[in-house]
Amino acid sequence: MYLENIKTPQDVKKLSVKELETLAQEIRKGILNRVSNHGGHVGPNLGITETTIALNYVFNAPMDKFVYDISHQIYPHKMLTGRAFGFTENSRMNDVSGYSSPLEDPIYDNFEIGHTSTSIALATGLQKGRDILGGTENVIAIIGDGSLSGGEAFEGLDTASEIGTNIIIVVNDNEMSIAENHGGLYNNLRLLRETKGKAELNFFKTFGFDYYYEENGNDIASLIELFKKVKDTPRPTIVHIHTEKGHGYQPAIDNKEGFHWRGPFEIETGELKHSGGPSMNYLLGEWLSEQIKKDPKLVCIAAAVPDSIGFSPERRAAAGKQFIDVGIAEEEAVALASGIAKRGARPVFSTYATFFQRTYDQLAQDLCVNGNPAVLNIIGSSIYGMNDFTHICFFDIPMLSHIPNLVYLAPTTYEELIAMERWAIEQDKYSVAIRVPACNVLHSTEPCDADYSQLNKFKMVKRGSRVAIVAVGDFFDKGERVVKLLAEKGVEATLINPRYLTGVDEEMLDGLKRDHTLVATIEDGCLDGGFGETIARFYGPTDMKVLNFGVKKALYDRYDINELLRENHLTDEQIVADVMALL
Amino acid sequence: MYLENIKTPQDVKKLSVKELETLAQEIRKGILNRVSNHGGHVGPNLGITETTIALNYVFNAPMDKFVYDISHQIYPHKMLTGRAFGFTENSRMNDVSGYSSPLEDPIYDNFEIGHTSTSIALATGLQKGRDILGGTENVIAIIGDGSLSGGEAFEGLDTASEIGTNIIIVVNDNEMSIAENHGGLYNNLRLLRETKGKAELNFFKTFGFDYYYEENGNDIASLIELFKKVKDTPRPTIVHIHTEKGHGYQPAIDNKEGFHWRGPFEIETGELKHSGGPSMNYLLGEWLSEQIKKDPKLVCIAAAVPDSIGFSPERRAAAGKQFIDVGIAEEEAVALASGIAKRGARPVFSTYATFFQRTYDQLAQDLCVNGNPAVLNIIGSSIYGMNDFTHICFFDIPMLSHIPNLVYLAPTTYEELIAMERWAIEQDKYSVAIRVPACNVLHSTEPCDADYSQLNKFKMVKRGSRVAIVAVGDFFDKGERVVKLLAEKGVEATLINPRYLTGVDEEMLDGLKRDHTLVATIEDGCLDGGFGETIARFYGPTDMKVLNFGVKKALYDRYDINELLRENHLTDEQIVADVMALL
Repeated sequence: MYLENIKTPQDVKKLSVKELETLAQEIRKGILNRVSNHGGHVGPNLGITETTIALNYVFNAPMDKFVYDISHQIYPHKMLTGRAFGFTENSRMNDVSGYSSPLEDPIYDNFEIGHTSTSIALATGLQKGRDILGGTENVIAIIGDGSLSGGEAFEGLDTASEIGTNIIIVVNDNEMSIAENHGGLYNNLRLLRETKGKAELNFFKTFGFDYYYEENGNDIASLIELFKKVKDTPRPTIVHIHTEKGHGYQPAIDNKEGFHWRGPFEIETGELKHSGGPSMNYLLGEWLSEQIKKDPKLVCIAAAVPDSIGFSPERRAAAGKQFIDVGIAEEEAVALASGIAKRGARPVFSTYATFFQRTYDQLAQDLCVNGNPAVLNIIGSSIYGMNDFTHICFFDIPMLSHIPNLVYLAPTTYEELIAMERWAIEQDKYSVAIRVPACNVLHSTEPCDADYSQLNKFKMVKRGSRVAIVAVGDFFDKGERVVKLLAEKGVEATLINPRYLTGVDEEMLDGLKRDHTLVATIEDGCLDGGFGETIARFYGPTDMKVLNFGVKKALYDRYDINELLRENHLTDEQIVADVMALL
Repeated sequence: MYLENIKTPQDVKKLSVKELETLAQEIRKGILNRVSNHGGHVGPNLGITETTIALNYVFNAPMDKFVYDISHQIYPHKMLTGRAFGFTENSRMNDVSGYSSPLEDPIYDNFEIGHTSTSIALATGLQKGRDILGGTENVIAIIGDGSLSGGEAFEGLDTASEIGTNIIIVVNDNEMSIAENHGGLYNNLRLLRETKGKAELNFFKTFGFDYYYEENGNDIASLIELFKKVKDTPRPTIVHIHTEKGHGYQPAIDNKEGFHWRGPFEIETGELKHSGGPSMNYLLGEWLSEQIKKDPKLVCIAAAVPDSIGFSPERRAAAGKQFIDVGIAEEEAVALASGIAKRGARPVFSTYATFFQRTYDQLAQDLCVNGNPAVLNIIGSSIYGMNDFTHICFFDIPMLSHIPNLVYLAPTTYEELIAMERWAIEQDKYSVAIRVPACNVLHSTEPCDADYSQLNKFKMVKRGSRVAIVAVGDFFDKGERVVKLLAEKGVEATLINPRYLTGVDEEMLDGLKRDHTLVATIEDGCLDGGFGETIARFYGPTDMKVLNFGVKKALYDRYDINELLRENHLTDEQIVADVMALL
C-alpha cells in the first residue's frame, strides 16, 4: 500500500515507476469504491489517474499551479493531496466534494470549479498574475477533450498564446465528451491521434502553441518523460495525451456514456443499485421523442447532456436529423435554436438551469430581442435538485424572468408541463422558457388549459378571502397543503397558480384588494430578484401586505434539505404560522 | 447615379462590373454622408462595400440568407435593400438604424444583431432549419476578423462544420478589431494572408471547412468570381477576404481605431464636430492610468473597447504589461481577472453593461463562487446611455445584483466613484462590481467614505420624516431635487444614498418605520428585478408603503429620453406628485 503514505504530492516523487504503477491501481480502487457507493464521475477519473501521478511526480504543487477543468477528473488529484479518506473510507465520503474546491483545500485546489471549459481561461489569470508579480512557477491547465468545444476554452487558448509565457495545457483526449464528442474540431483531434501528433494541420498550432503528443496517456513512464520535457518551458504549450475513458474497469470502458457519471452501482457488474421512478425531465424527453415522430419540423437540441432529458443513444438514433447535440456549447445551442425558429422549424433546447447561465446574452440578444419562437426547457430548478456548490439550479427565476421579451412558464404537474410544452412548440409569437418541475412527478386532477397565448393570466384555483397563496410551479402542491392547514385554522384562503414568471396578472391581483389583506408567494427558488418581489412591488403602494417565501440569496453547498427548508421558513407549518401572524 | 435605381438587390445584377465600381463610390459617399452628420461605424462599412455588392450580384436575397455579424458592416447592405435614403437624405437618417433589424426590414434583415460573434451561430440555425425543411438556399454569414475571437463564433464554427451542409462564412479580414486584434489566432490569419491562403497550417481547415482566400477584398470582379465558385456548395465553406478598413477615405485609413465608430465629423479633415467634456468613464480611465504608475500590481483589462474607458493607444503603451486587451472575449476577461486576483495581483476589467451580459456564468462561477477580489467597472448603465435596441445598458441591476457573493456598488459622484474604486482595488475579500455613473459628471460637496467593507450600509444624507427617498447612483441628484421640491410642499423628506445594490440595510430601513409611512426608490434602470423590488419585499409584511421608480421591463429602441421619462413617471415633478398622492 503506497497510497496511505502519500500525505502530500511531494511523497509521489519518492516512488519508482513500478511503485507508481501500483499506486495507480490503489487510486483506481479508491475511485471505484467511492463512485460505486456514493455515485460520482467514473470514466474521466479512471482515465486520468496516470496523468495525475505523473504531473505530481514532475511538477511541484502547490508552487506549480494545477487547474482541473470542471473537476470531472480531479479525484486522483484529491487522493494525492491528503484527501484519500474521501475515497477509501466509506464513512468519510461526504467530507470530500466531487469538485475542485479551495474551501476544502486552500493549498492544492486553486479554484471552485464545476462548469466546463473554464480551466484555460482561469489559468491565463494565474499566468498573467505570475508575470506581473515576477513569479517563476508553472501554470498547468488540465482539460478534457469534451470541454474544448466551449467558447470560453477557445477564448482562453487565444489569450494564453498571446500572453506568450509559460502555460502548459494538458488536453486529456479520451475521444468522448459526456456523451460522444460533437463539432468539426474533433476531426482534427482524430487526425492528430491517427498521425501520432505529426499532422501539419493542427488546431493548437494555429494559435502558436508548442505542441506535444503522447499516444500512451495511461503509461506513467511515458508521461513523466513528456512532462519533464515541458516543465519550465517559457512558452505556451499544449500536451495532447490520448487516454482511455474508464481505463482499468471494463463496465466503464464498455459503456462510456453511462459511466461518465453514475449513481451507486454494483462494482462487479456495473449495474445500478437503485433505479428510482422516472423524473419529470425524463418523462418530458419521452414525450418529445414521440412528438418527433409526428412532427417533422421538431428539432430537439442538447448540449452534451442528452441523457438528462431522456435522450438515450437509442432515442437519439431514432430521432435522426431531428436531434442535434452541439456538445458543450450552450451559447451555440441557444443561437442555433433562434435560427432554426427563424427559418420556420420548431427547436426545443433543454439543459440544466445552472448551464443556462452560460447563455444569458444569447437568450437576451440572439433569441429574445428577435422574438423567435424557440422553446427552452430549464431543467433541475429546485432546492431538491443538484446541491453541489457550482451546480445549484435555483437561481433561474432571477436570471431569466427579467429578460425582456421572454415568456417564462412554471407548470405545476406533468399534464400542465406537457400542455405548456405543446403550446410553446406550436405557437410562433414568443420565445418561451419552461421551468420543468424538479421535485416530484405530480399529476393534475383537473384538465389543464391548452392555450397560453394570453400572457400573464394567473389561474385562481380556489377563491377564498383574507389571504391569497400564490404558489409557483413545483411548489404549488406546497401551496395546496398550506391552504388546507389554514382551513383547519378557520382561514379559507385563496389559492393561485401564477403559471407565468415574466409578468403579473394585474387584474386578478387588483381584485384581491377587495377582501384580502395579505398575499403570500411561495417559490422553489431564490427570493432576491425572484417572482415574489415582483408581487411585492405591485402591492407596494397599497395596503396589501405581502410575504415572500423562498430561499435567501447565498452560496450553498451540499446542504441538508430539511435544514434549508427550516432556515428559510419554508416548511408548510412555518408558512402557515407566518401567515397567521399577519392576519 | 446607379444607387437611386437600386430598389432591391436584384437590381444589382443588371449592372456591369464597371458600373458596380461606380456604385461602390456612390455607396461610400452615402456612408460618409451619414456618419459625418449622424455618427456611426465608418471604417468597417467603407471596407465591406465591394463585398456587399458582389454578394448581392452573385446570390439571391432574400431567398439566400445573409447574416451580418454585429452589423458594424451592414450599411452597404441597407443601401442595396431599399434603405439608401437613410444615408443620402439627411432628414431621414433616423428612419434607419445602424444595425441589422427585421423590425426595420423583415425581408432582407434576418436577425436583430448588435452584439459581436453571433453571426455564425445564428447562421447554423438557418442552416439546420433549411435542412430540416428541405430548403435549398445558401446561408451566408459575414463576420469581421475582430469578431472571430468571441467564444460564440468558435462554437458556431464547430457546429457549422459538423452539420456539414451548405453554409458560407465570409471572413472579412481587415487586420483590425475595434482596436487592434488580440489573441494567438491572429497570427494564423496573418500567416494565411502572407501565403495568400496557401499555408498548410489553417485554423479554418482544422474544423474541416473548405477554404478560399481572396487577397483583393476590395476588388469587385475578383469577389464576384470567388462567390460564383462557392455558390450552392454542398459543404461548409470559408471565404477569407483581405480588405482595407476605411477603404477609400484617407482619414479612416490613417486612424483605423478612431474611425471604427465616430461621432459627427468634418468630412474633409475627419475632425470631430463636437467634443463634449470628458465622460465619467473617461475620467475613471484617466485615474486608473495614473494608478498603474503607482501600483505595479494593478492590471487593467479591456475587451476590445479600451477607448470606452479612456485607454487611448498612448495610455495603453504607457501601461505596458499592466494593460491587457483580450479582444472580443468578455468571458475570458472575467476568468482572467479572477485568476489574476487569485494569484495576488489587482485586476480591473471595464466594459459596457450590455457586454457584461456575455459573462453571466463567468461572473457567477469563475469569479463570485471563488470570491476572488477582482474589480469590474460596469459602463454606460443609464437610460441616458446608448439607446439602440441591442445596446441598452440599463438592465444591469436585475442581471448583476442577484448573483450570490458579488458586491455591486453604485457611486453617485466622481469622488465617490474613485473612493469605491480605490477601496475595491485595495481590499482582498470581495468580488466587486461598480456601476460607473453614466449621466453627467457630478461632484461631491461632502467627503466620501474610504472604506466600504461593512457591506450594505446605506448612507442617510438627510433625516426627515413621513417619506424617505432612496435614490440610486447617478439618479441620486434626482433624489436631491425631489427632496427639495417636497420641502417646497412642506414635506421634509429623508434622503438616502444606498450605495450597495446587492443587499439591504435592514437596520436603517427598520428605523424608518418609526416616523415614515412611505419609502420611494429611484433608480436609473429596469424596475423588474431591480433595486426597488428588494426594498418592496423588505417592507412587504409591514405597514410601510413603497413606491418604486424606474423603467418598465420592455424592449427599447432609439427612444426619446423625455418621452421615456414621462411614460415611466420619472420626471422630478411626476415623482413628487406620486409621492404626495400617497402621503
